[in-house]
Amino acid sequence: MAFEFERLATDGRARAGRLHTPHGSIFTPIFAPVGTQATVKAVPPKDLIELGATLVLANTYHLHLRPSSELIREMGGLHEFMQWNRPILTDSGGFQVWSLAAINKVDDDGVTFQSHHDGSKHRFTPEVSMTIQENLGADIIMAFDECPNPTDRTIVERAVKRTSQWAERCRVAHPDDGVQALFCIQQGGIFEDQRALSSEFITQLDCPGYAVGGLAVGESKTDMYRTLDFAVPMLPTDKPRYLMGVGAPEDLVEGVRRGVDIFDCVLPTRLARHGAVFTMDGRFNMGKATYRTDKNPVDSECSCYCCQNFTRGYIRHLVHSNELLGHYLLSVHNIHFLLRLMEQLRQHIVLGSFDEFANHFLSRYLTRTT
Amino acid sequence: MAFEFERLATDGRARAGRLHTPHGSIFTPIFAPVGTQATVKAVPPKDLIELGATLVLANTYHLHLRPSSELIREMGGLHEFMQWNRPILTDSGGFQVWSLAAINKVDDDGVTFQSHHDGSKHRFTPEVSMTIQENLGADIIMAFDECPNPTDRTIVERAVKRTSQWAERCRVAHPDDGVQALFCIQQGGIFEDQRALSSEFITQLDCPGYAVGGLAVGESKTDMYRTLDFAVPMLPTDKPRYLMGVGAPEDLVEGVRRGVDIFDCVLPTRLARHGAVFTMDGRFNMGKATYRTDKNPVDSECSCYCCQNFTRGYIRHLVHSNELLGHYLLSVHNIHFLLRLMEQLRQHIVLGSFDEFANHFLSRYLTRTT
Repeated sequence: MAFEFERLATDGRARAGRLHTPHGSIFTPIFAPVGTQATVKAVPPKDLIELGATLVLANTYHLHLRPSSELIREMGGLHEFMQWNRPILTDSGGFQVWSLAAINKVDDDGVTFQSHHDGSKHRFTPEVSMTIQENLGADIIMAFDECPNPTDRTIVERAVKRTSQWAERCRVAHPDDGVQALFCIQQGGIFEDQRALSSEFITQLDCPGYAVGGLAVGESKTDMYRTLDFAVPMLPTDKPRYLMGVGAPEDLVEGVRRGVDIFDCVLPTRLARHGAVFTMDGRFNMGKATYRTDKNPVDSECSCYCCQNFTRGYIRHLVHSNELLGHYLLSVHNIHFLLRLMEQLRQHIVLGSFDEFANHFLSRYLTRTT
Repeated sequence: MAFEFERLATDGRARAGRLHTPHGSIFTPIFAPVGTQATVKAVPPKDLIELGATLVLANTYHLHLRPSSELIREMGGLHEFMQWNRPILTDSGGFQVWSLAAINKVDDDGVTFQSHHDGSKHRFTPEVSMTIQENLGADIIMAFDECPNPTDRTIVERAVKRTSQWAERCRVAHPDDGVQALFCIQQGGIFEDQRALSSEFITQLDCPGYAVGGLAVGESKTDMYRTLDFAVPMLPTDKPRYLMGVGAPEDLVEGVRRGVDIFDCVLPTRLARHGAVFTMDGRFNMGKATYRTDKNPVDSECSCYCCQNFTRGYIRHLVHSNELLGHYLLSVHNIHFLLRLMEQLRQHIVLGSFDEFANHFLSRYLTRTT
């Protein structure tokens, strides 16, 4: 029961479901805000609850470096440490090693790298990643993978092989325990045969869930959607499917349309800190002088604390003055926007009107978003 | 009625009262958190309400430079702009001109200075300060004054003269209107005769309230308390008395003991952003490594959101990682601490046990605070 996944409705390839975890159930499709360093930047847990967030992601790489997974285990685990009693997902640390750290050595056994903070030396292997994630204690943990340039066939082929071997070692190091569900990651870049190879291998491992990795890392949106077209159906229909690192509204819609259940991304909070907001009419930057005396809310169709109380003129002042309240208000708004979008997508899957809603949403949202 | 001040109880020189304003009543003694740029840094208005804050201060100098008082007037005034429907106090801009700007010219008419943001040139006179504060629309506004080095007699004498002339011009420019109460400021540094001269002049202006200015600007605490001993009784007993820029817990206690009703300071929020906290046992810095695995709350006697939910170990991690949530949680805690202290002081004035409580508080608080 702990990690049972129920598909409750489908509409085309889109699915509405429910994933049970030891910290409560997640209605899917779902977007998970990212709490990189055991906090969703600028947003207190009580506000995340008010926003209706259920699943939060935290980063293994960052928490390993600071304050360390051993410390978090000593403090009672990540749920207790950050006071988030709903489900948590941790990544494997792999992606950050590739994108943030200075890599000293990669071999078939693992990766040696230097911290982006202080240059200190560390080594991640599949087994190390499992130990760290066990210390953290998230409900969903991820297999250690190699995340390559998705358009370079030679590199992708090697990454698929390594990711397969490492997934197997993760499954051995962390068998199903009813406490933490290990999801394995499909790699393969934009290549159908490689995605197939990768899927074939990891699905044999009979995991409680699967992720599509290695996308939204620089390839075009056309490439990403085309890849999802063939990559998602390669994963079992009766298991949750997680598209890693994706959070733009249009990508959430296109991902759900193709059968993805779970998403995460720093986008809503990172954009907020730069003054950018999602609205039904597209993405805008609130720092622009045109909003100086604008008495409208950021999004007149939004029911969040920011939009119910403050004008664009005030928000523009906060952004322009780099005030912390601006980071908070826009983070709240952007998270609210994505969570509400996911709710709507789910509702329209249940009603059987997914495509109609999705196309309507996109035609309006993309008019002004480039 | 709009600005009636009621003294409800006294204990020695300490007073408990109530000041009525067009945006509601303020129970005194009171501490006002500072919202320099029309926001109390990192703390949303809804949280300030939850903390029980009534009066908030905003800075004329900063708002004049960005986004400008004309813009705020166009947006409906400061209450509407920052969504704070309780009383607001604005300072005159004088203190920031002296402490932040590059001053080009001071004469008996006013001050010409350059913005600390962009070097743009501005001129403040008593009349300009009144116009700006009328645009902002705070309930309590302050006369334009010169804030000198309090221990330099020659400079203090000149500042007292100017402050008197400027106060009179402010009263002429802003007669009582039942909407904004103009408080005039006593200067005089640490010199009793100068404080007397200044008081004599400004009390003739029959203001709805008075402030003690020019303290907590670098003089010793002994000098400050000794000055308050003679300076506060020079002000009318039937009007509210405001000690500007003071917010350390020990200074609030000593100020109230000497008959002060209103205080403001950036201290609780500024300290928070540096990881420092008030507790009943003194001031501590939560960034220290000793708190790494400390499972206690910041202050085990505190009922704020921070202390009811999070450990010192987690707070230490947030401070160490410079996470925005740390700024928020410690700002909430520090503001809560000062507001609760003021409540307790008020209660003990009413009960006639002020000195007993004050001495008990100080003997404990000052044990570890240097």
